[in-house]
Amino acid sequence: MPVGLSELPDLLPVPGIRWGVAAAGIKRSGRDDVALMEIAPDSAVAAVYTRNAFCAAPVTLAKAHCAAASTRYLLINSGNANAGTGEAGMQAARESCQAVAQLAGCADEAVLPFSTGVIGELLPVERIRNALPQALDSISEQGWNAAARAIMTTDIVPKGVSRQILVNGETVTITGIAKGSGMIRPDMATMLAYVATDACVATGLLQSLLQQAVDHSFNSITVDGDTSTNDACVLVATGQAKVSFDSEDEAGFAEFAAAVTEVCRSLAQAIVRDGEGATKFITIDVKGGRSVAECRQVAYTVAHSPLVKTAFFASDPNWGRILAAVGRAGLKDLELERVLIHLGDVCIVRDGGRDAAYTEAAGQAVMDEEEITITIALGRGEAEAQVWTTDLSYDYVKINAEYRT
Amino acid sequence: MPVGLSELPDLLPVPGIRWGVAAAGIKRSGRDDVALMEIAPDSAVAAVYTRNAFCAAPVTLAKAHCAAASTRYLLINSGNANAGTGEAGMQAARESCQAVAQLAGCADEAVLPFSTGVIGELLPVERIRNALPQALDSISEQGWNAAARAIMTTDIVPKGVSRQILVNGETVTITGIAKGSGMIRPDMATMLAYVATDACVATGLLQSLLQQAVDHSFNSITVDGDTSTNDACVLVATGQAKVSFDSEDEAGFAEFAAAVTEVCRSLAQAIVRDGEGATKFITIDVKGGRSVAECRQVAYTVAHSPLVKTAFFASDPNWGRILAAVGRAGLKDLELERVLIHLGDVCIVRDGGRDAAYTEAAGQAVMDEEEITITIALGRGEAEAQVWTTDLSYDYVKINAEYRT
Repeated sequence: MPVGLSELPDLLPVPGIRWGVAAAGIKRSGRDDVALMEIAPDSAVAAVYTRNAFCAAPVTLAKAHCAAASTRYLLINSGNANAGTGEAGMQAARESCQAVAQLAGCADEAVLPFSTGVIGELLPVERIRNALPQALDSISEQGWNAAARAIMTTDIVPKGVSRQILVNGETVTITGIAKGSGMIRPDMATMLAYVATDACVATGLLQSLLQQAVDHSFNSITVDGDTSTNDACVLVATGQAKVSFDSEDEAGFAEFAAAVTEVCRSLAQAIVRDGEGATKFITIDVKGGRSVAECRQVAYTVAHSPLVKTAFFASDPNWGRILAAVGRAGLKDLELERVLIHLGDVCIVRDGGRDAAYTEAAGQAVMDEEEITITIALGRGEAEAQVWTTDLSYDYVKINAEYRT
Repeated sequence: MPVGLSELPDLLPVPGIRWGVAAAGIKRSGRDDVALMEIAPDSAVAAVYTRNAFCAAPVTLAKAHCAAASTRYLLINSGNANAGTGEAGMQAARESCQAVAQLAGCADEAVLPFSTGVIGELLPVERIRNALPQALDSISEQGWNAAARAIMTTDIVPKGVSRQILVNGETVTITGIAKGSGMIRPDMATMLAYVATDACVATGLLQSLLQQAVDHSFNSITVDGDTSTNDACVLVATGQAKVSFDSEDEAGFAEFAAAVTEVCRSLAQAIVRDGEGATKFITIDVKGGRSVAECRQVAYTVAHSPLVKTAFFASDPNWGRILAAVGRAGLKDLELERVLIHLGDVCIVRDGGRDAAYTEAAGQAVMDEEEITITIALGRGEAEAQVWTTDLSYDYVKINAEYRT
């Protein structure tokens, strides 16, 4: 079961955003597998996508459409990733956008497609087309919770969060949903996130805000490093609240940016907590680096080490594995004598070896917790970075080995 | 059980090299855990070591000793890595070299120390000192097989290989042994390899030969990417055969270099075949790259992907996972349409998606084999690289989660 995740709360509507859902029969379960987000005219839309070179057809098309026209609809299907499908996949993505455009009376380019599910099978456009009237019929400002469920693939729980803040005395709402069970799911590609606010934000500012928020949330999680072909995160600002931002320097923007980042971080951490086979939620906190890049390099090396991850699964305070992972992270001129490593509050490495005051009992007490922080102080600068990850359990292998059998 | 590994053959002696072994009581099993290689005077010695910044005390000392004097003895212990032990560990390594030097009548610096086993516990020097007379008593040119066993930690089988080639009508022998069960073993650090030949090779030439051989053997294997703190490979040329090399251009050197590389590759592959929980032996062959570096980058990304590895464990022809791993390898300007991926002889990816002629039955037939080659043609250059790896099984998690419990 997901680590420390509670039931999905009732998500707050965002004026200017409506969601409709439908069961198109793409998922074998017969559950909802199409979600349609309607965006009010004159909203600003920002998006970031996977950097996987084999990105899926819908990712390529969404980028092109977003650049060509104002976005009015996001069409999301689960159960099929439309990835690794070549030119036929591009055509299928185009046709699904056309189907929405015809029903809704907008340009094809005003529709952005997103797909998540099995790689390498052609998208069943006809099923999506047939399901669209139902999706449009059900469209409502209260549709966030239904959408959070419709975009799930093998996620155990739906993921969503809402925040409200006061900016200059006016209420601004931020609501987001995400799916994914780590960056990875067997054949299930993979992470999608949709966040909306009723603040009015200039498009360029919205894009830079999203990039920064994603760097400190979705781009700081890993289950096993397998970046998917379909990852996407969209941030919409409808401008229907009485709060408007044109530049970073304006009063209240810092608080607004922090709230958006917090929504993204909460969604990102929910994905890790629902990571495949996860029994632990692990924060890796690297400090004292020369650059954020090198802090992330160390954090990811530790986070991806199968030896470190299996030790967490076993609740084994096997500090030598953490030390070895830091050592192989590839930092030039790393001075071992200056590196300090803590497991929770317990110092494990000091002066190039095990801390003299360390006891196995103290290490064990930390490892027995469900949520654990490793702090690595490099002692050579002021930069820092955080990464969130899970352990590596029998269930991880089981889920991934047995998926298609 | 190891994949496709036969019993250790009788290894051929190398004139000028003698091995002695002893049970010092470092391993709990009571088996031999000290091996002493005696090297005839005037031999040339080359060595390469782990690049892990947290390298163990014996690695640091071996480098210093090798630079300071002609090497006469290699002292290897298993059961304790003397890593993460700080200044006390350095002192323990020094004392163990002194103990050999006093008994054998050579300088301390003529002894190179190597340790493999649990990280973070102090080396029991007294036990080693007490065992050295037995090791010296047993010393013999026939000692290679006993040494291959003495350096094992959690290896299932001992690993060794001999080759003889004719150079200008004279016989040259090359024999090598190695230990390691992947680059990783829980707390067991990790890979050690010792290769000797009776050819006479100039020291500088021997070092460059070793570096090249290692690049195409030990540096091309991975079980899970966890480079250890203790890895080392030593190549000794005793010069007792009537064959001598001073430069790369001499007649017969290319054949000799190929034979040394073949010995190293055979040992490296044996380590993979005995990898933790391994049920498959996988060759990843990347061609058509702009540089060897980018070919290795793609090969390692595929080799380290837990999704690819669990698919191999399940014998599941889940080609989308391989495609996704190639796509996230970070190659700039990779043109998907030019990438060809084969599983054995079966083309799985062509023109940016699944090959039109691919069938699940054909893919399944390849995946059912115990030894499998993935060939990835990048279509953008002439460089190539090979990497050997294993699958990721329940036993991998079991071995690493339960090691200390």
